Amino acid sequence: MAITLYDLAGADAERRFSPFCWRTKMALAHKGLDVATVPWRFTEKDKLPQPNAGRVPVIVDGADVVHDSTTIADYLETRYPDRPSLFGGEIGRSLARFVQNWTETVLQPALIGFVVLDICRHSAPQDQAYFRQSREERFGTTLENVVKDRDQRLPAFRDSLAPLRRTLERQRFLASDAPAYADYIVFGAFQWARAISDFELLASDDPVSAWRGRLLDEFGGLARKSPAYGG
Amino acid sequence: MAITLYDLAGADAERRFSPFCWRTKMALAHKGLDVATVPWRFTEKDKLPQPNAGRVPVIVDGADVVHDSTTIADYLETRYPDRPSLFGGEIGRSLARFVQNWTETVLQPALIGFVVLDICRHSAPQDQAYFRQSREERFGTTLENVVKDRDQRLPAFRDSLAPLRRTLERQRFLASDAPAYADYIVFGAFQWARAISDFELLASDDPVSAWRGRLLDEFGGLARKSPAYGG
Repeated sequence: MAITLYDLAGADAERRFSPFCWRTKMALAHKGLDVATVPWRFTEKDKLPQPNAGRVPVIVDGADVVHDSTTIADYLETRYPDRPSLFGGEIGRSLARFVQNWTETVLQPALIGFVVLDICRHSAPQDQAYFRQSREERFGTTLENVVKDRDQRLPAFRDSLAPLRRTLERQRFLASDAPAYADYIVFGAFQWARAISDFELLASDDPVSAWRGRLLDEFGGLARKSPAYGG
Repeated sequence: MAITLYDLAGADAERRFSPFCWRTKMALAHKGLDVATVPWRFTEKDKLPQPNAGRVPVIVDGADVVHDSTTIADYLETRYPDRPSLFGGEIGRSLARFVQNWTETVLQPALIGFVVLDICRHSAPQDQAYFRQSREERFGTTLENVVKDRDQRLPAFRDSLAPLRRTLERQRFLASDAPAYADYIVFGAFQWARAISDFELLASDDPVSAWRGRLLDEFGGLARKSPAYGG
């Protein structure tokens, strides 16, 4: 029986843009598990199976309901130990946490400053007021103001990718010759951006761009086939 | 027979401050290998065994001469596979490269701006002119100018440690409950700083400081016993 994944969707129900849901979708594909996704909107908190924390991803696997992308990855690794490993052991799992914390303290906070207005524009009509109000409170200004100088911020953003770029200059994936969960964590952030914004974050000759392309092609083009902008 | 390590030394031959040599010393201790260090100065390029790239660490292990800390770690893992693993497999090795590239593009470039004048002061007399000239050329200004605003840079530096701090809030070491090579890479940078500078980089209640303390205590206090400043 397929695993059910509650997956953040935009005004177009096929446009899936949560970075955390992308981590989970890539992890499920890595494990070779069948999945049926349920499009979910920010304001549909009462439609999630219990238990949940009011956010996606949430998966339902038979009798198990698991929420939070990190908890889901750990669950999949334990529940399906004979399928390809997401972590390659305890050291690999622990170092993936460092990659995650870099993604969540450096990469994603920078990305939100580029694409937050585009997220709002692509959100379902019933989500837009909620999204705008909650994010404008967080930023202390309008979404239009947040993004207006994004072209000027692009060079510093690209510089901040140095640890990622230097690694990918020397190996095909963060996790070695083949991708694993650490790759999906970072990829989820880029896929989030390209799913809802045509703002090009990466120079075409950036090794990070080539790596992103390889991950778009993984699993029969799972991420490339999903509605998004070019690149 | 003990492995010989050529190890960067200061005016005081016991003061060992190369971040790359510290990686190697911790890795050798992790593998439980006996080591005899040879103090080496920047200007003693002709005293290194062949082959070398004019830098330390270089190790001599029986008939094998290996240089470059990353190459040495790979050598030790392959040559001593039955001893505790430095990487925990290919994924762990690959993700340690990301930690290394973060250390070399974010952490070490920031540290040099805090401690470069202290390095010069602690260098052997015959090294000081070489060191000052080569670094002043790189910075385009005097070493005194490089460090003069370091107090003002400290808050931003501490913020830049967010990926490290958040990881160490949730696990004892980067590599899990016990340290491994990824820890030694980052620790080497902090040990370099404390070996030659009394400038306190970390707040005493920073989880990064507690982690550094645990690594100072590893291997019978190997790093804590080495001449350095407090913290």
